[in-house]
Amino acid sequence: MSNAALLRDFTALLGEKNVLTSEADRQSYSYDAAVLPPVVPAVVVRPVNTEQIGEIVKRCYDAGVPMTVRGAGSNLSGGTIPDSSETCVILTNGLTKILEINEQDLYAVVEPGLVTAQFAAAVEKRGLFYPPDPGSQAVSTIAGNIAENAGGLRGLKYGVTKDYVMGLEVYDATGALVKSGSRTVKCVTGYNLAGLITSSEGTLGVISRAILKLVPPPKASKAMMAVFDEVQAAANAVAGIIAAHVVPCTLEFLDNATICYVDDYTKAGLPRDARAILLIEVDGHPAQVEDEAAAVEKVLQVCKAREVHIARDAAEKFKLWEARRMALPVLARIRPTTVLEDATVPRSKIPAMMEALDRITKKYKLQIGTFGHAGDGNLHPTILCDKRDKEEFHRVEQAVDEIFDVALSLGGTLSGEHGIGTAKAKWMEKETSRGTILFSQRLRKALDPKGLLNPTKLVGI
Amino acid sequence: MSNAALLRDFTALLGEKNVLTSEADRQSYSYDAAVLPPVVPAVVVRPVNTEQIGEIVKRCYDAGVPMTVRGAGSNLSGGTIPDSSETCVILTNGLTKILEINEQDLYAVVEPGLVTAQFAAAVEKRGLFYPPDPGSQAVSTIAGNIAENAGGLRGLKYGVTKDYVMGLEVYDATGALVKSGSRTVKCVTGYNLAGLITSSEGTLGVISRAILKLVPPPKASKAMMAVFDEVQAAANAVAGIIAAHVVPCTLEFLDNATICYVDDYTKAGLPRDARAILLIEVDGHPAQVEDEAAAVEKVLQVCKAREVHIARDAAEKFKLWEARRMALPVLARIRPTTVLEDATVPRSKIPAMMEALDRITKKYKLQIGTFGHAGDGNLHPTILCDKRDKEEFHRVEQAVDEIFDVALSLGGTLSGEHGIGTAKAKWMEKETSRGTILFSQRLRKALDPKGLLNPTKLVGI
Repeated sequence: MSNAALLRDFTALLGEKNVLTSEADRQSYSYDAAVLPPVVPAVVVRPVNTEQIGEIVKRCYDAGVPMTVRGAGSNLSGGTIPDSSETCVILTNGLTKILEINEQDLYAVVEPGLVTAQFAAAVEKRGLFYPPDPGSQAVSTIAGNIAENAGGLRGLKYGVTKDYVMGLEVYDATGALVKSGSRTVKCVTGYNLAGLITSSEGTLGVISRAILKLVPPPKASKAMMAVFDEVQAAANAVAGIIAAHVVPCTLEFLDNATICYVDDYTKAGLPRDARAILLIEVDGHPAQVEDEAAAVEKVLQVCKAREVHIARDAAEKFKLWEARRMALPVLARIRPTTVLEDATVPRSKIPAMMEALDRITKKYKLQIGTFGHAGDGNLHPTILCDKRDKEEFHRVEQAVDEIFDVALSLGGTLSGEHGIGTAKAKWMEKETSRGTILFSQRLRKALDPKGLLNPTKLVGI
Repeated sequence: MSNAALLRDFTALLGEKNVLTSEADRQSYSYDAAVLPPVVPAVVVRPVNTEQIGEIVKRCYDAGVPMTVRGAGSNLSGGTIPDSSETCVILTNGLTKILEINEQDLYAVVEPGLVTAQFAAAVEKRGLFYPPDPGSQAVSTIAGNIAENAGGLRGLKYGVTKDYVMGLEVYDATGALVKSGSRTVKCVTGYNLAGLITSSEGTLGVISRAILKLVPPPKASKAMMAVFDEVQAAANAVAGIIAAHVVPCTLEFLDNATICYVDDYTKAGLPRDARAILLIEVDGHPAQVEDEAAAVEKVLQVCKAREVHIARDAAEKFKLWEARRMALPVLARIRPTTVLEDATVPRSKIPAMMEALDRITKKYKLQIGTFGHAGDGNLHPTILCDKRDKEEFHRVEQAVDEIFDVALSLGGTLSGEHGIGTAKAKWMEKETSRGTILFSQRLRKALDPKGLLNPTKLVGI
C-alpha cells in the first residue's frame, strides 16, 4: 500500500498481526466464490472490537481509500472481490461473539463475523431456533448473510435473513455510528435503515452488530422424496401442495441432469431416467406434521409421482437428502468452472423456466444441471464449463443473458438470494426502471459521497 | 392556492371534481388522528389511476409545492397533517382496486387506497389470509399501513405490515417511477427500497402499487381471558407463555384503570378490583391449538390468575374480547382529548414499564388507562385530558417525555407502531445517535432535494 501513514495508523490501532500486507496474504483475499477475475487489495485489516471498525472506516474515508468488508467470502456475485489495487479489505473474523441470547424476548445480539452455523447451534442449545440456512452456512458469517440477504432451504416457510434482522449497528462511510431497529418486536422509530442495509452488499455501511429474531423450534418434522417422469408433474405437485394450504419448510427440486451427475459420482443408485426429484419436508406440531405429510402424499399420488420415499428417522432423511446435499459439490467437480445462477420466478412458472433451460442448454451446447428451491421458484441452473475456453465461455455468457431474459419475462427476478455484486449490475435496469437506478444512485452517493464502500458493486455510484 | 397555472393543470389532468379547493373541503383534510394543531392545505387532489399520481407529483415538484399523501388519515403521529398552507394533499381514495390475488404464488397486487379490512375480507374469500390488523383497519388504507408500518394485535406471531410487503412501485419526489421487490418469495435485486419506503411516512416517495404476501389461514383457534390481582403476575404469565414455546397470535393486556373505565361505560360486570386482564388467543392446527391452550392454562394457573375464562365459540370470544375492543372508544369519551402513546419495551420489561406508568400517573396527577399488545411489549398508555387546559396539557407533555425516557432506559423504543410524524421527531436522536439522524437526513435530502415530501415529518430535512 502506497499510503505509509495510513499503514502506520492501522498498525498502531490493531497491532502488527492484524494488518496484513504480504503478497501471499493479499492474494488470499483477492477472490470470492463468484466466477470473476481476482483483484489483489492493498492491505487487509482485522479489527477485534467494534470500535476498531469505526476507526478503520474513518481513517480510510479521510485517506480516500476504498473499502471491501469480508466475512467468509462465500458469496456468489463478487460482493467481496476488492474493487481495485488500492482497496483496504476489512475482515470480520476477529468479531465472532454472541453478546446475548434472550430467551424471554426471543432475540440475540451478535458480532458481524460470527459463523451462521455456529450461531444456529448456540441458539439450538438454548432451546430456540434461527431458521435462515444458506448453503454456505458452515462458513458464511451473519453480517455476510445480512449484506447479501442470504436465503436458503427454509425460505418458503420461514423467510430469509432480512426477516430475522430486528436491528443493526453500522458504521457509515465516514465512520459515524448509525443505529436502527430495536430489541422490541415492533419498532417504527425512524427510517427502516436496518432493512435498507440488509442486502446492500457492503455499499452503505459496515455492520458492527446485529439484533436477530429467534423463534421456538418446530416440535416435529417429516421428510420425503418423490420421483417424477415429467418436470411438469413435479411442478404440478409443487402447486398442488401450496393449493392444499401446506407450506413445507423445505421443497427442493433436482433435474435429470443433476440426478445423473450426482449418481455418476456417488453410485447411490438414483433413478437416472427420472425427469425430476422433489424433496419435501414439513415441520411443526406432531399432529400437523402427520396431516400435512398425508396431504402431501395425496398430492404426489394425484400428480403421478413414480416413487415416494418417506424417511422414518433422521438417518433416513440424511440418506434421502444426499442427492440434494451433493448436487453442488458434484456439479462443481465436473468441469473447471461452475457458474451457479439464481434467477427466480413465481413458483407457478417453474415448468416454463425448466423448458427454457432445456432449450438454452441445447441452443448454446452447454452442460447445465438445475436444482434448487422449488417452493420459492428459486432455481439454481448450474453451468459446467471452463472459463479459459473463451469460445465456450462466450456461449455461457450468452446463455446467462438469456436465462435472465426468460426469468424477467415470467415475472421473476435476476437474483433470489445470491446478490447483484458486479456480476449482474448491468441487468438491474431491465428488471426495475431507469428511475430505480437513479434513485438508488442518489441514495448511495448521499451516504457515501467519496464512493469508497464497495464502489463497483450493486449499482454504479 | 396561489399557483393558478398549477390548479389549471390539475383540473385538466383530473377533472374538476377531483381537485378540491373550497374552504370546507380543505378544512376536512387539515387534521388526522393525532392530537396536533390542524393545518389547512392549499389544495386537495384525487388521482384515479396510478399514472395520475406520477403526473401530480411531477407538477408539484416542478412548481416547488409541498405534498402530503393521505389515505384515511387514521395515523396517530401527525403523518397526514399538511406541512403548511402551501401543501397539496394527494388523496388515495380513488385508487382502491385489487389488481390480482394469486393463490398459487401466495401474493396480491393492490392499489394504495384500498381499505385494509376490505382487502383482508377479499383475501379470506379466496381461502387465504392477510394477517396485519391495525386497530384502524376498518378505515385505514394499505399504503397508509405501509407508510406507517402499521402493527396490530397479531404482531407477535405474524409480524407487522413490513413483513408482508414483497414489492412496491413508488413515484419519487420528481415523479419518476421506482420499482423494488418482486412477485417472488426471494428477491435480492438492488437495494431493499421497498423495505426503506415502508415506515418512511410519505417522505421518500408516493406509493402507487404494492405486492403483498399472503399465507394460508390457521385451521383453528382458541381464545381465553385471565384475570390477575397483580400486574407482576400477569407479566409473569406473558413470560411463562413464551418460555413454554407458545407464540399466541394475540396476547393483550388491560390495566385496572382501563378495566374500570370500560366497566363504567359498558356495565359489563368486569372485575373492577383486578389489577390486570390478559386476553390470549392461540391458532394453528387443531391439535396444536389444544396443546398450546392447555400449556397456556397451566402457565396461568402457576402464575395465580384469579379467573380464567375460555371461549367455547366465536360468540363467546366476541364477548370476552369486548373489554379490549371497547378500551380505546371508551377511554376516548371520558375527556375531550385522548393522547394515545405507544412507547414499546422488550416484553420482559412490562412490569417495570407498568410501575413507571403508575408513578408517572401520580406524579403528574393525570388520568391514564393502559392497554395494548403485551406479547410485543407494545403498551398504549392513554392519557385522558383537555388540551385547551394549558396547565394540564403541560403536565401531559411532561408525562409523555418521561414515558419515553423510561421506555428507552428499559431498552425499548419511542414507537412500536404509531410512527414518529411530527409528534416524536425531537426524540429520535435520544434513541439512536447523532450519526443516525445525519445519515437519515442525507438520505432524505438526496431523494427529495427540494424537501417537498411531507417535509416536517419523521426527521428534519
